Amino acid sequence: MSSSLSNRLSHIFSHLNSERLKIVVTRDLGPDVMTILYSESAKYEIVLWPGKNACDRKWLLDNVRDALALIVLVTDRIDAEVLDAAGSQLKVVSTMSVGYEHISVPDLAKRNIRLGYTPDVLTDAVADISIMLALMAGRLAKETTLFVSEGNWPTYSWAPFAFCGSQISATPSSPKRTAGFLGFGRIAQATLRRLLGFGFTHCVYTSNPFSKPSPERDSELLSSFGAPLHSLKRVSLDELASESDVLFVLTPGGDETKGLINEAFLKKMKKTAVLVNSSRGTVVDSDALAKALKEGWIWGAGLDVIAGEPNVAGDHALVREPRCVVLPHIGSATVQTRLDMATLAVQNALAALNDQDMPASVNVTL
Amino acid sequence: MSSSLSNRLSHIFSHLNSERLKIVVTRDLGPDVMTILYSESAKYEIVLWPGKNACDRKWLLDNVRDALALIVLVTDRIDAEVLDAAGSQLKVVSTMSVGYEHISVPDLAKRNIRLGYTPDVLTDAVADISIMLALMAGRLAKETTLFVSEGNWPTYSWAPFAFCGSQISATPSSPKRTAGFLGFGRIAQATLRRLLGFGFTHCVYTSNPFSKPSPERDSELLSSFGAPLHSLKRVSLDELASESDVLFVLTPGGDETKGLINEAFLKKMKKTAVLVNSSRGTVVDSDALAKALKEGWIWGAGLDVIAGEPNVAGDHALVREPRCVVLPHIGSATVQTRLDMATLAVQNALAALNDQDMPASVNVTL
Repeated sequence: MSSSLSNRLSHIFSHLNSERLKIVVTRDLGPDVMTILYSESAKYEIVLWPGKNACDRKWLLDNVRDALALIVLVTDRIDAEVLDAAGSQLKVVSTMSVGYEHISVPDLAKRNIRLGYTPDVLTDAVADISIMLALMAGRLAKETTLFVSEGNWPTYSWAPFAFCGSQISATPSSPKRTAGFLGFGRIAQATLRRLLGFGFTHCVYTSNPFSKPSPERDSELLSSFGAPLHSLKRVSLDELASESDVLFVLTPGGDETKGLINEAFLKKMKKTAVLVNSSRGTVVDSDALAKALKEGWIWGAGLDVIAGEPNVAGDHALVREPRCVVLPHIGSATVQTRLDMATLAVQNALAALNDQDMPASVNVTL
Repeated sequence: MSSSLSNRLSHIFSHLNSERLKIVVTRDLGPDVMTILYSESAKYEIVLWPGKNACDRKWLLDNVRDALALIVLVTDRIDAEVLDAAGSQLKVVSTMSVGYEHISVPDLAKRNIRLGYTPDVLTDAVADISIMLALMAGRLAKETTLFVSEGNWPTYSWAPFAFCGSQISATPSSPKRTAGFLGFGRIAQATLRRLLGFGFTHCVYTSNPFSKPSPERDSELLSSFGAPLHSLKRVSLDELASESDVLFVLTPGGDETKGLINEAFLKKMKKTAVLVNSSRGTVVDSDALAKALKEGWIWGAGLDVIAGEPNVAGDHALVREPRCVVLPHIGSATVQTRLDMATLAVQNALAALNDQDMPASVNVTL
């Protein structure tokens, strides 16, 4: 028996004699999901951070001791200090998020702790917000809603080209539309599926430069979208910039994608094109985008994420730009999706506690 | 030869002797479209209102005299006074709009003047704005963009259910979605086509109560939308209210539809449902809607039109309602669509001048 396993067992047996095994949860996940957890109360003690805001670090360090499972959010930094405070019996960290930048994966690996996360369930919600941002940027939603809320409508004189946007959808007189994707995973494909109803006929994408191009996969994907889509192909960044009518940034963050959307890229885009970022703020160079919008290199932009968030003040150049819609990172924020994410986070934790396959886990081997 | 025809001919011949035949245009339609008109300058004198705002009534009455064709906008009231000022040689009034409430059709009929309008070309632009409004209302776009622009993001503490919207699209755990339409013409059908990519599975609609229900037509329509749509049926107003996840008002205005969306209707809707009006403001009772939003009978609303517009001040109850997005009637406002509308208005006028079939005309027989 390995010493780590024997440590773990002795911890468990000491608990069985004294108190129930502990699941620590760093935020109230709402009545529907907490009910699932509390239904396990006979077996596990549920220890819940009582606050409404992010879990206090000191509370976590104090309460994580002897926990078997830890259910966390993006607001919790899970590092060696937390894991050491927990003790070697900790079996699983389960985060209610698709990203896990807040968790030190090597430190989990060293301790044989499993990691659960919540991909896929947010695909539809993020695809929805991507389409919403494309339409809002194209149709001048910021300028026009402000016009009404500031009380200017009564004095407005209708004119044939006033408030005219760039039309996202194809029309009988303008039947070709090209969707561009920087990153072409599940959310991008769900976004493309939505665009077909808007008459999009072509798709170009760029992918991880270290992955091999696969015309076979492209051809399979193309036929999965059916007749409305005429072509789907992997292209260079230059072609992505110049061919897209709407460009969706749906790629992971990090050093490899940092600032890929820069001045050079934006200058190659169509003047009527719209840029949407609903993945990671760092991919888009904010200064370059502000310049592009001010000087009319592109039509507009819709951002659910922005470099440096949440430290984005009201006078941030992009927040003040009339052609730029900025949302506070609400891509997955729907009641339905957040319930699915919370449920999956709980299911991941419970599966790991029962030594079963987790519905969605990250491989944390060293 | 009828006396009206002989009058007209004598007018025309007198003009041929003196000056070119006249086309009066009440607004600059932009360089692309005016070029089409000016290319007819050898045959016709083009008389254009020189202002940037709505055409002055006195200018119109003075200049319309002896015109053969009159190209107008929704800002021009075309009544007996204008038609009398024109003279009996006037062959056609062509409006750059799908609505023609600003034109006295009986007065045209009495004088055998043809009427051109611009339906269909705006279908896609209005369907786009309908989807945009549904997403904006569902995803709290007003509240969240304001949160950012007012500089609150830096102090925001992420929480699992903060800023959570009502999800428009279907998800694996919630796979049924019903689109409801009050009025089911071309724009409604184009909107439904877009919704299929969002996973909508069911469609209910109510139609002109004087038209006969046709299950055969419904069945044909259903198959035209393909496999993703499971059912499509005409229902009563009560069923429309209670079954719709998103309800689109896309019906003509006027007395027959005035206030159809009232307190009784809104009370029957789902609490998670969203209401979109992109047709005529009069169909929705504004006081009832404000009450419904304030008291949470429905999730949110997106309005491109509103009763009493453009006299809608910044302190209008619906403009101030956080869950209500209000746009200044920009449904057809895209560069592409407005160019198509202006082009069609010119084509209608030229066709009538050449005694040909007009691409899109209203039947004005008495």
